Amino acid sequence: MAGMESEVLRLTTGDRLTTDITGAVARFCADKGDGLCSVFVPHATAGVAIFETGSGTEEDLELILESMLPRGARFAHRHGSPGHGRDHVLPAFISPSLVIPVLDGRLTLGTWQSVVFVDSNVDNPQREVRLSFLASA
Amino acid sequence: MAGMESEVLRLTTGDRLTTDITGAVARFCADKGDGLCSVFVPHATAGVAIFETGSGTEEDLELILESMLPRGARFAHRHGSPGHGRDHVLPAFISPSLVIPVLDGRLTLGTWQSVVFVDSNVDNPQREVRLSFLASA
Amino acid sequence: MAGMESEVLRLTTGDRLTTDITGAVARFCADKGDGLCSVFVPHATAGVAIFETGSGTEEDLELILESMLPRGARFAHRHGSPGHGRDHVLPAFISPSLVIPVLDGRLTLGTWQSVVFVDSNVDNPQREVRLSFLASA
Repeated sequence: MAGMESEVLRLTTGDRLTTDITGAVARFCADKGDGLCSVFVPHATAGVAIFETGSGTEEDLELILESMLPRGARFAHRHGSPGHGRDHVLPAFISPSLVIPVLDGRLTLGTWQSVVFVDSNVDNPQREVRLSFLASA
Repeated sequence: MAGMESEVLRLTTGDRLTTDITGAVARFCADKGDGLCSVFVPHATAGVAIFETGSGTEEDLELILESMLPRGARFAHRHGSPGHGRDHVLPAFISPSLVIPVLDGRLTLGTWQSVVFVDSNVDNPQREVRLSFLASA
Repeated sequence: MAGMESEVLRLTTGDRLTTDITGAVARFCADKGDGLCSVFVPHATAGVAIFETGSGTEEDLELILESMLPRGARFAHRHGSPGHGRDHVLPAFISPSLVIPVLDGRLTLGTWQSVVFVDSNVDNPQREVRLSFLASA
């Protein structure tokens, strides 16, 4: 395979902070060989992270973010819903860019790792994630 | 295009925490095709992030960093200006490495995203950022 | 060189929060040309960061993590040792994925930068890091 393959994944996140996208990323890579998979979020109030889902960490992350970036704080950024200023600081800490090595079409994630879209903005339930795959010739 | 192209961008940051480098990164990629652009900061007290600039988030990030990493705390790292110890913790949270997918020479950033050099160290106003572009053959 | 080269580095971390892996990453890249080196941690309670080691920042990071993610907080994730819930939030902030540009087999790190495995989980002293190198044809 030559060239970079790239496509956009569309998500409906509603008001959830976290959306597990592991399955979609794995499907995107499944017919590809060895290379690097870039997971990139083209939004200014969201990021992408890798952690275990389904055991409480989603809720723990929500609490930690609330203590790091309290919605009630006085933010200079004042557009949108109350507390929206903090949504804009989030991607400085939970980056919108992530790279995952892929071998023989399989993500090299560990057993307990999931790829998670993290979005603290409740005003935009329709979101996109760009998936790109770069292999050597 | 074969091989990786790489060059160093030189910045004069003065005592600003944040410097928007989107234009320079876009110009670096403009004559290239599809691939991954690595933005890498070779300094131990700076990182690179993606967020919206010009609407207050720069100031919000400064406040959040001051609450996460208070300059007045007792840091084990004690070289340089008072509070310099916290500058050395910053890149653990705002990574010096970022990858952005590029299609047909254009960064795939969202409308409100900018690439931002983040440097809380006021002692070194001259800084570098390494830009590298990797395409498949 | 064509294709992606990838191998697993095995670490014995004991109960240390941080392990400097710069030497191992540099050795992995030493016989390769220009390209991107992915450093990827396949564990759900660890990440990888770049910062200066040997001057106190390791201890400073430990204090900052304890204030951001206090072990004594009530976490929803309750498996393992007390405070283990916070270990699972750590990779949302200290990502398990990092990319470093390599030129002529040399990491383009700055003088004071080291690549550091960060693992707050004391229950699993045997750890792995996947190193991958992608070059253009």
